[in-house]
Amino acid sequence: MRPYEKDPAAIYAESFATVRREARLGRFPPAMEPLVVRLIHACGMVEIADRLAFSPAAAEAGIAALRAGAPVLCDCEMVAAGITRRLLPEGVAPLVTLNHPDTPGLAARLGTTRSAAATELWRDRLEGAVVAIGNAPTALFHLLEGLDAGWPRPALILGFPVGFVGAAESKAELAGNPRGCDFVALRGRRGGSAMASAAVNALALMAGEP
Amino acid sequence: MRPYEKDPAAIYAESFATVRREARLGRFPPAMEPLVVRLIHACGMVEIADRLAFSPAAAEAGIAALRAGAPVLCDCEMVAAGITRRLLPEGVAPLVTLNHPDTPGLAARLGTTRSAAATELWRDRLEGAVVAIGNAPTALFHLLEGLDAGWPRPALILGFPVGFVGAAESKAELAGNPRGCDFVALRGRRGGSAMASAAVNALALMAGEP
Repeated sequence: MRPYEKDPAAIYAESFATVRREARLGRFPPAMEPLVVRLIHACGMVEIADRLAFSPAAAEAGIAALRAGAPVLCDCEMVAAGITRRLLPEGVAPLVTLNHPDTPGLAARLGTTRSAAATELWRDRLEGAVVAIGNAPTALFHLLEGLDAGWPRPALILGFPVGFVGAAESKAELAGNPRGCDFVALRGRRGGSAMASAAVNALALMAGEP
Repeated sequence: MRPYEKDPAAIYAESFATVRREARLGRFPPAMEPLVVRLIHACGMVEIADRLAFSPAAAEAGIAALRAGAPVLCDCEMVAAGITRRLLPEGVAPLVTLNHPDTPGLAARLGTTRSAAATELWRDRLEGAVVAIGNAPTALFHLLEGLDAGWPRPALILGFPVGFVGAAESKAELAGNPRGCDFVALRGRRGGSAMASAAVNALALMAGEP
């Protein structure tokens, strides 16, 4: 079998060097760049750099929120599983309400998906939070409707729903009107839990730096 | 805000219809097709159909293994988190050894990554298993080295490591010499936990059909 790199530090270094060499990173503010590099690292696609929408202070907003111990609200278990716990401040753990016992009943009552209904259970924790959506377009749509209806504002919305029905549309809605929140979103059908987790991990790493 | 689809059944139906309309599925055997559709559904990219490598009986091998109660061995927690437990047979749960207490010591002793070392702890469960690799190229490389050294053979290897160092190479190694195992792999840098989970879920759905 061909030889391959086994040293974790060398793998990381070579990966990030490849991303920096191939991706068009010039348009990103300094604090956004490490986040974009980690997004690309998580999906293997350098060209997503060209499809990212973001507010100018998105990275700073996320870093400040994490430093302040803000909750990290995730739309599915995969996003939470991808977040490196030891990078988060003491006492902060990702919160997923998708499998909360109240969620199916709420979804039925509201006539929507469980993913959308799950965001209703974020309301008490939403003020100043970091929201990481890596799966469900309806979760992002429902959150935006909630913000229109006066829900507390998160500090940052990481918008990475994926797929063929509503993913591109929900992210366009976020980027077109972020309701006073900072945001990062990947335009189009692509997205996913790994990107949402990678964004949180990038912010947590920066938040942990002096 | 623009209207959007909120009915889960309609979202699934429209998603799968879009995938079937846009993706080139003609070259796949009947049992592979639903697996490919779910892979595409998980990542939002119809063109990955053109980059999939697979053994002709891969889907049947996975279905038979799951029906027989074979273990599902995952290289990271995100893959396990993406597997829908209720689709798996009674008593089968995804197994992840990455965070096993023995893994860091093994990695140090073997001079490799934790992801690679974690596959050493699969050996007792490997015979006839379904292996789902959605993150680490070194896990796939190490498993293939183990098979060369006489480890028990899994029934099916789902090869979806992602990234810039070793991902394409490890999947090319698997596709070039699957060591007597059935396999599905996405060539190139792309891959990820969501695809690995989606492949397992597709097989579990088919295994649950009469």
